[in-house]
Amino acid sequence: MTTPANPIDPVKLDKLAQVAIKVGLQLAEGQDLLMTAPMSAAPLVRRITEHAYKAGAGLVTTIYSDEEATLARYKYANDKSFDKGAGWLYSGMAEAFKANTARLAISGDNPMMLSGQDPDKVSRANRANSAAYKPALQLITGFDINWNIVSYPNAAWAKLMFPNDSEEVAVGKLADAIFKASRVDVDDPIAAWKEHNANLKQRWTWLNGKNFASLKYSGPGTDLTIGLADGHRWKGGASEAKNGITCNPNIPTEEVFTTPHRLRVEGTVSSTKPLSHNGTLIEDIQARFEGGKLVELKASKGQDIFNRVLDTDEGARRLGEVALVPHSSPISASGLLFYNTLYDENASSHIAMGQCYADCFVGGKELTQEQIFAQGGNTSNIHIDWMIGSDKIDIDGIHADGSSEPVMRKGEWA
Amino acid sequence: MTTPANPIDPVKLDKLAQVAIKVGLQLAEGQDLLMTAPMSAAPLVRRITEHAYKAGAGLVTTIYSDEEATLARYKYANDKSFDKGAGWLYSGMAEAFKANTARLAISGDNPMMLSGQDPDKVSRANRANSAAYKPALQLITGFDINWNIVSYPNAAWAKLMFPNDSEEVAVGKLADAIFKASRVDVDDPIAAWKEHNANLKQRWTWLNGKNFASLKYSGPGTDLTIGLADGHRWKGGASEAKNGITCNPNIPTEEVFTTPHRLRVEGTVSSTKPLSHNGTLIEDIQARFEGGKLVELKASKGQDIFNRVLDTDEGARRLGEVALVPHSSPISASGLLFYNTLYDENASSHIAMGQCYADCFVGGKELTQEQIFAQGGNTSNIHIDWMIGSDKIDIDGIHADGSSEPVMRKGEWA
Repeated sequence: MTTPANPIDPVKLDKLAQVAIKVGLQLAEGQDLLMTAPMSAAPLVRRITEHAYKAGAGLVTTIYSDEEATLARYKYANDKSFDKGAGWLYSGMAEAFKANTARLAISGDNPMMLSGQDPDKVSRANRANSAAYKPALQLITGFDINWNIVSYPNAAWAKLMFPNDSEEVAVGKLADAIFKASRVDVDDPIAAWKEHNANLKQRWTWLNGKNFASLKYSGPGTDLTIGLADGHRWKGGASEAKNGITCNPNIPTEEVFTTPHRLRVEGTVSSTKPLSHNGTLIEDIQARFEGGKLVELKASKGQDIFNRVLDTDEGARRLGEVALVPHSSPISASGLLFYNTLYDENASSHIAMGQCYADCFVGGKELTQEQIFAQGGNTSNIHIDWMIGSDKIDIDGIHADGSSEPVMRKGEWA
Repeated sequence: MTTPANPIDPVKLDKLAQVAIKVGLQLAEGQDLLMTAPMSAAPLVRRITEHAYKAGAGLVTTIYSDEEATLARYKYANDKSFDKGAGWLYSGMAEAFKANTARLAISGDNPMMLSGQDPDKVSRANRANSAAYKPALQLITGFDINWNIVSYPNAAWAKLMFPNDSEEVAVGKLADAIFKASRVDVDDPIAAWKEHNANLKQRWTWLNGKNFASLKYSGPGTDLTIGLADGHRWKGGASEAKNGITCNPNIPTEEVFTTPHRLRVEGTVSSTKPLSHNGTLIEDIQARFEGGKLVELKASKGQDIFNRVLDTDEGARRLGEVALVPHSSPISASGLLFYNTLYDENASSHIAMGQCYADCFVGGKELTQEQIFAQGGNTSNIHIDWMIGSDKIDIDGIHADGSSEPVMRKGEWA
């Protein structure tokens, strides 16, 4: 009898855990850590826990989710269950963040987990969860503390990406793709991230210098003008949280991003990659914006779910983020479709519906919610990215005086 | 190649899950459920989640613990870590209980998990955790909501009980012992529990009628008088929580129990079974009480840890519970030593250091903390049961006028 080799390289997995703590979080000596993860990601959780304690963590606490328990709810729960969220848990999390606890999320859930479920139940459960999560989410999007998301190659996700391979081979391929995109397949990942952050800084410094009033997108199915918020600031890569710690909130990350003006988006736009949102796939989105609001929506798959999500609140049909990613970015160059926003959004320019990032304003850390709103920042219980970039999209920057200059041509920096 | 059979009978595991929901919790339609469990107990968590939703649960949320993460803390964390507790999580739990969320704990951790660790770190971590847990624990011991503990046959626990068997055989034996003790090895476990609760009620009704002032224990190494609290009430089996739901907080349970007077315990007592407390074994305890306080302590193993635990607070060296279990109880008759208090305390008369149960007073649900204290109830951040019963122990009930009558002879009801 032969034992199959572990398809996930343990050395690279350990490097990913180190990068999560040392680059993603820059966890401080004595700082507590709150982690969330699918149960199947336990091998990475354990590596991260070890590196957190080695870095001097106070207490590391992990809240696991379990796909089987989630599905049992859809299978057996009565109708009223789907309007409930775990408010007590999220208010506990908010308490932890207010006490300077760092936050790390491991993504890797099955992107199709809820695809067979009743869209009404799915959207109501999402909405109830978003409402319950808001107190904790605001402290994250407001960068009160250092936070980070990394991924683990779970089997269902791998099989969706590589349906013709055995589970073992699929997991191995996804693991390698994650390690490459997360820059842990090199000798010195920490140096690689330093260099990458410097490159991203060069991009956002250029964009901040230009101070465009709006961006104009042109391409197949897309003729869209996105006004940028007053006093917006471009960011990307490393980010200083209000607690003074510089973290890399997304691993991987290839984007530079800022805050659009919630009232100044006009035109039509088409998605260029499927969006996987909380276990549901939404494909071939076509949307029309008027006065900043998404007023018309079509999708070949998941249209009903997406429409219901956008009914969450007043801000859900307006933009909270605009991000630029060149088509030649390493994740895009892999040619893989990940069905996972953390990856797909870093292979393509994208926009996000809902909540904006306070830190994407000049002096954002000191601005009140009211000031951010007055400058055009959006507020919502949701924040959902979707991909609108490809090698067929041109983007022009429009100055306040109406003059314009190229930002991207055929999906590449101009 | 042959696949080994699952050593845990899936039909009985499902019955255990049903009993946890229908007898242990009597979960109400629409009630939320908060579960805690070791990760290795996921198969039972999933069965319980299913039965909770089938019974009309609102939202079921499970907080998993992971032995490997706990050990990583002891291996890698700096010294200051051991004074930290997850206060944010427990205050979230307390919020959930205040909103009428039911609570289910699955026990089954490795009883020896922390046996190789620094006793100073172990006791400081326990103390910090107890202090953080207090707001949630008080709502449980006060029976604000329906709660329940059941067990899952984890491998390390099984191997400790059956060291000469393979892991598979050991797990199978422990599973069978759990199913038998939990009364799910019969056709109709719910009827069996109804009958068992009626038998326990007969015992505590008799004891309440007697209204003894104290109990006197005699046997090898034991000459102890335990004064009972003023207005104490004996309980056992089913218990009505303040939310009006009758739950069976422990599965299994064989005990009838009440509240001793925290100032009226005199004499010496010896443990009759090892105590496993948070991953440490404490064996051959010999203790002397004076004025209700444990003033002298010896133990052949774990004496240092136990002493440190008893330094937690003022109430930790005083009794919070006294419980009677006949030596012929089914768990005792199995001849097995479980190294798990939920089992061993139901094989033997026992006492508990620390916090008392408010509901073990006449009218206890309406009494304030101050009234309970004035009647002799103890308060502490800990509640640790240890076993003092055997077939060599006699117990007499002493009336207020000094007259006495036998309660137990050679460990059996007199």
